[in-house]
Amino acid sequence: MPSVGTKKHVYFFGAGQTEGNATMRAALGGKGANLAEMALLGLPVPPGFTISTEACNAYLASGGRYPDGMMEEVQAALARLEAAMGRRFGSRDNPLLLSVRSGARASMPGMMDTVLNLGLNPDTLPGLIKATRNERFAYDSFRRFIGMFSHVVLGIKSERFEERLIAKKQREGVALDTQLSARALREICEEYRKLVRREHGAPFPDDPREQLRRAIDAVFASWNTERAVVYRRLHAIPDTWGTAVNVQSMVFGNLGPTSGTGVAFTRNPSTGEKRFFGEFLLNAQGEDVVAGIRTPLSLEELRNSLPQVNTELEEVFATLERHYRDMQDIEFTIQDGTLYLLQTRTGKRTAAAAVRVAVEMVEEGLIEKKTAVRRIETSQIEHLLHPTIDPRAAATVIAKGLPASPGAAVGRVVFSAAEAVTCVASGEKVILVRSETSPDDISGMHAAEGILTATGGMTSHAAVVARGMGKCCVAGCTSVEIDPSGTWFSANGNKVNGGDYISLNGTTGEVLLGRVELVEPQFSDHFVRLMAWADEFARLGVRTNADTPRDAEVARNFGAQGIGLCRTEHMFFQKERVNAMREMILSTERRDRERALAKIRPMQKGDFKEIFQVMQGLPVTVRLLDPPLHEFLPHADEECRELAAAMNMSQDELRLAVDRLREANPMLGHRGCRLGISHPEIYDMQVAAVFEAACELAKEGVAVLPEIMIPLVGHVRELEITRRRAEEAARQVMERLGVQVEYKIGTMIELPRAAITADEIAPQADFFSFGTNDLTQTTFGISRDDAGTFLPRYREEGILPDDPFVTIDQGGVGVLVRWGIERGRAARPNLKLGICGEHGGDPKSIAFCHAVGLDYVSCSPFRVPIARLAAAHAALHETEGVLEVDR
Amino acid sequence: MPSVGTKKHVYFFGAGQTEGNATMRAALGGKGANLAEMALLGLPVPPGFTISTEACNAYLASGGRYPDGMMEEVQAALARLEAAMGRRFGSRDNPLLLSVRSGARASMPGMMDTVLNLGLNPDTLPGLIKATRNERFAYDSFRRFIGMFSHVVLGIKSERFEERLIAKKQREGVALDTQLSARALREICEEYRKLVRREHGAPFPDDPREQLRRAIDAVFASWNTERAVVYRRLHAIPDTWGTAVNVQSMVFGNLGPTSGTGVAFTRNPSTGEKRFFGEFLLNAQGEDVVAGIRTPLSLEELRNSLPQVNTELEEVFATLERHYRDMQDIEFTIQDGTLYLLQTRTGKRTAAAAVRVAVEMVEEGLIEKKTAVRRIETSQIEHLLHPTIDPRAAATVIAKGLPASPGAAVGRVVFSAAEAVTCVASGEKVILVRSETSPDDISGMHAAEGILTATGGMTSHAAVVARGMGKCCVAGCTSVEIDPSGTWFSANGNKVNGGDYISLNGTTGEVLLGRVELVEPQFSDHFVRLMAWADEFARLGVRTNADTPRDAEVARNFGAQGIGLCRTEHMFFQKERVNAMREMILSTERRDRERALAKIRPMQKGDFKEIFQVMQGLPVTVRLLDPPLHEFLPHADEECRELAAAMNMSQDELRLAVDRLREANPMLGHRGCRLGISHPEIYDMQVAAVFEAACELAKEGVAVLPEIMIPLVGHVRELEITRRRAEEAARQVMERLGVQVEYKIGTMIELPRAAITADEIAPQADFFSFGTNDLTQTTFGISRDDAGTFLPRYREEGILPDDPFVTIDQGGVGVLVRWGIERGRAARPNLKLGICGEHGGDPKSIAFCHAVGLDYVSCSPFRVPIARLAAAHAALHETEGVLEVDR
Repeated sequence: MPSVGTKKHVYFFGAGQTEGNATMRAALGGKGANLAEMALLGLPVPPGFTISTEACNAYLASGGRYPDGMMEEVQAALARLEAAMGRRFGSRDNPLLLSVRSGARASMPGMMDTVLNLGLNPDTLPGLIKATRNERFAYDSFRRFIGMFSHVVLGIKSERFEERLIAKKQREGVALDTQLSARALREICEEYRKLVRREHGAPFPDDPREQLRRAIDAVFASWNTERAVVYRRLHAIPDTWGTAVNVQSMVFGNLGPTSGTGVAFTRNPSTGEKRFFGEFLLNAQGEDVVAGIRTPLSLEELRNSLPQVNTELEEVFATLERHYRDMQDIEFTIQDGTLYLLQTRTGKRTAAAAVRVAVEMVEEGLIEKKTAVRRIETSQIEHLLHPTIDPRAAATVIAKGLPASPGAAVGRVVFSAAEAVTCVASGEKVILVRSETSPDDISGMHAAEGILTATGGMTSHAAVVARGMGKCCVAGCTSVEIDPSGTWFSANGNKVNGGDYISLNGTTGEVLLGRVELVEPQFSDHFVRLMAWADEFARLGVRTNADTPRDAEVARNFGAQGIGLCRTEHMFFQKERVNAMREMILSTERRDRERALAKIRPMQKGDFKEIFQVMQGLPVTVRLLDPPLHEFLPHADEECRELAAAMNMSQDELRLAVDRLREANPMLGHRGCRLGISHPEIYDMQVAAVFEAACELAKEGVAVLPEIMIPLVGHVRELEITRRRAEEAARQVMERLGVQVEYKIGTMIELPRAAITADEIAPQADFFSFGTNDLTQTTFGISRDDAGTFLPRYREEGILPDDPFVTIDQGGVGVLVRWGIERGRAARPNLKLGICGEHGGDPKSIAFCHAVGLDYVSCSPFRVPIARLAAAHAALHETEGVLEVDR
Repeated sequence: MPSVGTKKHVYFFGAGQTEGNATMRAALGGKGANLAEMALLGLPVPPGFTISTEACNAYLASGGRYPDGMMEEVQAALARLEAAMGRRFGSRDNPLLLSVRSGARASMPGMMDTVLNLGLNPDTLPGLIKATRNERFAYDSFRRFIGMFSHVVLGIKSERFEERLIAKKQREGVALDTQLSARALREICEEYRKLVRREHGAPFPDDPREQLRRAIDAVFASWNTERAVVYRRLHAIPDTWGTAVNVQSMVFGNLGPTSGTGVAFTRNPSTGEKRFFGEFLLNAQGEDVVAGIRTPLSLEELRNSLPQVNTELEEVFATLERHYRDMQDIEFTIQDGTLYLLQTRTGKRTAAAAVRVAVEMVEEGLIEKKTAVRRIETSQIEHLLHPTIDPRAAATVIAKGLPASPGAAVGRVVFSAAEAVTCVASGEKVILVRSETSPDDISGMHAAEGILTATGGMTSHAAVVARGMGKCCVAGCTSVEIDPSGTWFSANGNKVNGGDYISLNGTTGEVLLGRVELVEPQFSDHFVRLMAWADEFARLGVRTNADTPRDAEVARNFGAQGIGLCRTEHMFFQKERVNAMREMILSTERRDRERALAKIRPMQKGDFKEIFQVMQGLPVTVRLLDPPLHEFLPHADEECRELAAAMNMSQDELRLAVDRLREANPMLGHRGCRLGISHPEIYDMQVAAVFEAACELAKEGVAVLPEIMIPLVGHVRELEITRRRAEEAARQVMERLGVQVEYKIGTMIELPRAAITADEIAPQADFFSFGTNDLTQTTFGISRDDAGTFLPRYREEGILPDDPFVTIDQGGVGVLVRWGIERGRAARPNLKLGICGEHGGDPKSIAFCHAVGLDYVSCSPFRVPIARLAAAHAALHETEGVLEVDR
């Protein structure tokens, strides 16, 4: 025992003397804590002891000095181990052999080091032979030990030893290690020892205590190897955690045909099916299973080879799952027919398996619903919603862009929206390749399987719209150069013609040549049940951004509780509408504008009717026209010609008119409610269309809950004016149609000034919807469309921790959102508050939305399940605290 | 006296019984208060009484009912007046006649009504003849009374009476009214009375009491005539003020050759010279002076005509000026050699006169310096700084745009910057006419006398740059349509060819055909002294935004205390530099970019040296490159051809490169410190050039105080990175040149996020300069360049009280500025704080800057004096309160 006032550094486990347990993960590492826990459960764990992570940290911090008292504790624990095992470390008669393994708090597979069979030397070897009566085994263990120790501790390349082993097998005329004779293995040991003397410049250290000391040093030091540092950075593991060292008495899987070693999962990690799943090798040590030299057998074979061990193992599996209440990943060794457990940890699994395991464990009474919900990561859900590139497919990657919208797509290359529509109409699948997309391309984007753009970032038009459509998109793929002829593109020296097949991986950003095999998404009953539980815990509602009946339907099926943003502009881009729209824009007389709008009104009414029908019983927030009018005007020569003819203008006049409307910074231009004020007839028409649709359905008994949303308000007067007009337009329709419909009128909060003056705006608004896309653009002064030239670098260099268009910038934009909420609610306590920017589908941002007290988030249909889960996580995080997840 | 509890409505003045005084302007109106004050001073004021503005308000509010007790008070006052004058109102023997005049709190010249000679009728007329023994005078007074009363009270057009008077003079064969005989005048009175019966449908009201009542009603009602309402709106006079009614015993200037009437200023209102200045007419009533039928005589002639009256008048002038301590505008009447004063008020004056009067009054000991400073309005200063259109010039206005930059300009029309430069080089003066200007046009704008643009608002590129240059500009002149050929423009049906002369009035926004005469600016010693006094009171410093040595010199002469913003980008637009710049932009290798920049460096060094030299001893804030790189690339075909050749690229390649750099929203694009981070070699070059210039001058003993300013910081890390690099570049230069120069590094606060996170940014910044142009753009989400299509309407409809690009929006942008200041100073108490947006030259915004505690404002050179004065006003306003200014 350590003296009073000194820290305890060493924890014994096994042999009924276990000092640690599973909760001591921080001090003992995952492996050490679970070894202790298994020992406490009475499972057959070879006894040993764990040197704590704190000892490691102290060692590293002091430049290689053990903390006071540690080595004394190690000696004491070793003595205890010798007593428990009835063998002595370094004994010539019946030597105790040890394994020395690293074990950090978070699992860092393959990143750190292990030494087996420690304690062997020319003196102790005969003792091992005597004790096991197996000379071949003893030399096999010795050569393994020399190789591993020399590699891990002395830094000699393991290839040096491999080469000699292979040469020996050739000379002996055998294929497998197990076929080598005791003699051959002894000779190899000699060769290895000579090799060490040559490479290391000193003889192999034979003193077992020195071996142990140096192995401990090596494990401590392995925490700071480059690969470990890089791994930690990639997985956000703090450098300060350190690793524990597990020193354990050896058990041998290589003692003969009734010995062996294996790994197993308590359920299928790929499907989640409740059935043991694993592999083993007879007459082998752990490294052999991983090395892939011999093909391991399926765990089911163990029933035949060693039925009793199999029964015992199945009991262990059941015990461990019941105890840990999660699927376990287990390492075991069988020595002469006796089962030993070397490790247990939470098993990694696919998204589909994760969902199934969680749901079935609830049914089995193993875990609570909230635990099931918390166990599923939102990032896993994404994989369930999109087809993906088959990871086994052979494919040539020709370029890599931004993974703008996940999933995968295969199709023929087209370079224009029109071409996309035509090809798809004739039964082809296409990938739309553009320098960048614009609202003109919507129909083509709809038609295409996927979208590839050369410029634009994660939140460029292409990216946002594609995600909205649940469509695969690779954006900002700068190595793609579209020829000005628009008939081919090149990418890193590959020429791809229009009509050629390519494949996109929207999850990685890869562009692949040809038609790559896809894997269809998994969307199981388990998933549906899990999501329902999530909703029970969530406080935030989840709505969707949907502009079409189809999107609305998808979203409703995904569990959306309403539409938080129905953009009306996309409705204007269809052929016959855009013509009327252009007529309206180019007319100088109000009467002409109204006549043009009158053509669009019945079509808009039809759209709204379909959407209201799909969403019946749920609120539908309709945003009035937002984009600047010039977005609707043609640019292509032919279209200009057509339009000029239709408008009875000369082409020069038309061009002049188009030029006049062009804007230097359209994002900050004549759009949103500014249009509603300068062209009130547009909003009048839209509001009338909404209420005609609503009233007609209401008469049929459909429950409609329209919410009119005014965009881009910066000053309360803008809202006052547009609100008053909208109320009047609504009143007129309802009076004419003789039916009253409940409705709300609210506003986007998407400009800093709106957030700052929320207390002035709130009295005019039934609801606020934070438009965090534009709010981020204006707060940062960054155009999403242009950010591709510098924002990626900002992310790489850590200037910004996250892409602020993906994850809400809490320190800047978030401050405005908080102010908006506080001031808005202060002025109007019953104000309804939501968010409809892209952030509404981002889990980190959703946690923020929960924390600041929004009522709902609204996101694209395909992100609705993710948002529902994230909302549940946020609520559970608040009430339950952080879940200690096995990493 | 009114009974207790009732409000007093009527205030007597004159005859030693005066009840009011000059401080009672609100209740008695300006005229009434000053009549009372003059009476108290013992000056010869015909006695009378004033009915209060409150009575007027009560009358108007009740729909035409006198407040309780008012009429009783009028009767009592009238009785007192009769007693004082020894005459009775309506008496057949010696009737008291009255004048009834309006008199509001603020002077509203010509806006409201007056009736003279009230009390005359066929019964009282003989009494007047008897009392004056002047039949002609009596009938002259009668016909005046009938005309005025009928017009003012009965609403009959005064032309009707004029026509008859003219016809009569023709029939009588005389030219002047004074030449009409008593008989002729009597006949006119008859005609007038018939005219009234016909037009009014009832006989002329002969009862004097009814005349008085109806005249009072008419004056009350005149407060709400359309022209009065419009005038109040234009001059920001509250509708709630109301008008007082002054009822005064008549004195007659039309009694004969020793009678007369006149108006006088105690100093010359045009030049400010201390010399009485005025005009008078003998044998006339007040209206004759104004009507312009007879040519009035200069006041100097009075010395000859009526020397004693003249002496008396000069004493009155002296008394009044001494009393009011300001230049007075006086109305007087001489009745039979006796002087009467009818009005005194603060005299309106030109800007030049205002300055001279104020300065000389300080010298005379009449007023304090601070009073002098407060008396000059900042808007007046503007007139002193620019040549102006001669108001007497005859000219054809062909269009009206926004008064974007004051002053006037005359020149030949050119349509391109290149043409402007060429024409000016050949000795022509030109007006640059563009749809809008871009940085490419800078040289042409420099060369031109003035700039006219068809689009863009008060803060468009053209407007901002023109104001910066102190150059006349009319912007957003939408009726100007430039023919696509670029050889002529049309405006409201006028065709103007290139080479034709036009003139611009930047103060009104008018575009005039041909060469209009200009008046040169006044810039006197008085002005210089006044400005020096202003600086004594100001707490805010005033710096300038200057990019060239010439601008710096102008600003320094105008009293700038440093440069608050030296934009370096304009320096890049000169021919040989822009080529190197383009080379830099289009090079893909860093080495090539550095080589191109090396060409610019000595030129930039030269620029900085000249500027530092001019500003020696004063701080110079140099902003590193801000605009996006594509602004430097050519668009014209020929330029592209040249550049492609120079760069050894094909034209297609060049075009592709140019297209690649194009941005959807350049305002929110790859600019500011984002460039400094992606292309660090640019900032390195600029910082090196600054420090080479500074060090070389420092060696020569010139005091240089460079301040490096990093633009467009949104996140502290951006500043950290660019600051560290700038420090290193500075260190290297100073080490190489072996001299240390004190310097600061700070940042613009021009994005909402920067203001919000000012506490994080401040530790990295020696100073903040609020860039309120961009801060306004981002806070409102409004692009200055595009605002012209909707912002004017917002202003007209009162959606926004001010143009937020002219006057800082305190409720939104101002909140961010306040936060920025509070958080910045909290984190770094010695943080230096300034503003360098256009608002730095706007008086209202300067008052805000003073209130929130900035250290300085920075504005364009020509606004420096305005800013100095505004800064003094803000400080005096704080310590002294509001100055009651005669409006």
